[in-house]
Amino acid sequence: MLSWVDGRPGDALALGDRGLAYGDGLFETIGVSHGRPRLLERHLHRLGQGCARLALELDLELLRAEVLVFCAQLGEGVAKLIITRGDGPRGYAPPLPAQPRRILQGAAAALYPSAHGERGVRLYPCATRLAEQPLLAGLKHLNRLEQVLARGEWQDGQHAEGLLRDQAGRVIEGVYSNLFLVKDGQLLTAELSRCGVAGVMRAELMMRASQIGVALQVRDLAYSELLEADEVLLCNSQYGVWPVVALQTHRWPVGPLTRKLQAIARDLLDA
Amino acid sequence: MLSWVDGRPGDALALGDRGLAYGDGLFETIGVSHGRPRLLERHLHRLGQGCARLALELDLELLRAEVLVFCAQLGEGVAKLIITRGDGPRGYAPPLPAQPRRILQGAAAALYPSAHGERGVRLYPCATRLAEQPLLAGLKHLNRLEQVLARGEWQDGQHAEGLLRDQAGRVIEGVYSNLFLVKDGQLLTAELSRCGVAGVMRAELMMRASQIGVALQVRDLAYSELLEADEVLLCNSQYGVWPVVALQTHRWPVGPLTRKLQAIARDLLDA
Repeated sequence: MLSWVDGRPGDALALGDRGLAYGDGLFETIGVSHGRPRLLERHLHRLGQGCARLALELDLELLRAEVLVFCAQLGEGVAKLIITRGDGPRGYAPPLPAQPRRILQGAAAALYPSAHGERGVRLYPCATRLAEQPLLAGLKHLNRLEQVLARGEWQDGQHAEGLLRDQAGRVIEGVYSNLFLVKDGQLLTAELSRCGVAGVMRAELMMRASQIGVALQVRDLAYSELLEADEVLLCNSQYGVWPVVALQTHRWPVGPLTRKLQAIARDLLDA
Repeated sequence: MLSWVDGRPGDALALGDRGLAYGDGLFETIGVSHGRPRLLERHLHRLGQGCARLALELDLELLRAEVLVFCAQLGEGVAKLIITRGDGPRGYAPPLPAQPRRILQGAAAALYPSAHGERGVRLYPCATRLAEQPLLAGLKHLNRLEQVLARGEWQDGQHAEGLLRDQAGRVIEGVYSNLFLVKDGQLLTAELSRCGVAGVMRAELMMRASQIGVALQVRDLAYSELLEADEVLLCNSQYGVWPVVALQTHRWPVGPLTRKLQAIARDLLDA
């Protein structure tokens, strides 16, 4: 499969890279269709925010050009982009200046059952709780052991996603998706200033909601609010929107706003 | 410099390794002297605990043999051992069964000024606070962005280490060391069930303290207790013990128990 390291074909990483040593970096998983990256500006925007937070100096214009060429060669599938702080001497101290490393890996698109979108999915109630770290909240960084532990909690095919809550029990997101609730016609999603990943599709749906006149609240969400929601939905930049229909014994219907957002996501991904 | 991947000479990692993708793994930094690893059983014990917590199946006997041969070849310096969950398909789900990867990298021993041990060090007051994640607390895992951010807070040569507190303000550790307080002849160190790294030298000093009749408390430590301590000291498995003499305007003397523990650590590292 196609893979590049710093703009050249390559499938191996130097052992001294800080991405391996400390998870010192960021990533984006970009859908590719007809040789073009989907939602590229959103992905680059989030990456840029992550670089600022981690004090990583990255030439986003150069990167954009590189991603476009890579995706043109890939054609169809997924381009996983990893940015690390590059090589450094031993020790946590970030080298100054650092030479960030760009890694691009192509893969086939994940094949999700169409029933997930049509009939909805069941959430696994993850026991793994997200830690609160405001300095890293919202970023798609390479420190993802919490997601690995959470995703390792279930192996059955009955649960397409897991519910992640924070240490205080608040409802945050899925393991690889963001979560929205619908209550009395309003859209609600968790505030991600303490933990969580601010997804690219979440950002798009937040913007579109206001365009179609749907009120949106971004705030802390109690577990009871999830249970009492009229509709629940998941989103990410690969599959778009899935209705959530079950969590343990609890059931939600697939509602009209979920279907509307699903159609919007589909249009975005087909564009 | 000497480096092995899965027991064979190598200096590159496959891009699909989960250590890079998610920081899905653990590491140990082992001092090597006269071809022999220092405190090897302690390092392997902690690694084994980490593997259990991350559900990583690793043959510790095979690993011990491999580390011994590696260190014999290295002679003098530091052996950095990284264990990752190995390659896997895309996505957080841990492959079952996983094929863990063993990485060994040799380096020269870090050269710390002898004044750090003789006259003591000044702590930098890190603004980065540790998140509370009981599932990962105590482990030396590869998700180390908090340490990277904390160590990036100071560049001057005046501070040999930084003080890390948790989100609630409790005193936890240094960025690459553990911390002990001495108060009324008792030794105190932070309980590490919510965050922090349970260091190999910390474990040794805890055991030796009881052997020399020094009472030890392992519990939450308030910031005021740090300020009111009679002595403060740092330890890790590379440098042994450093007295702490200053934090901002606060001063501590270098006390007798610190010197005693320093001598014990020196003996351990010289053994």
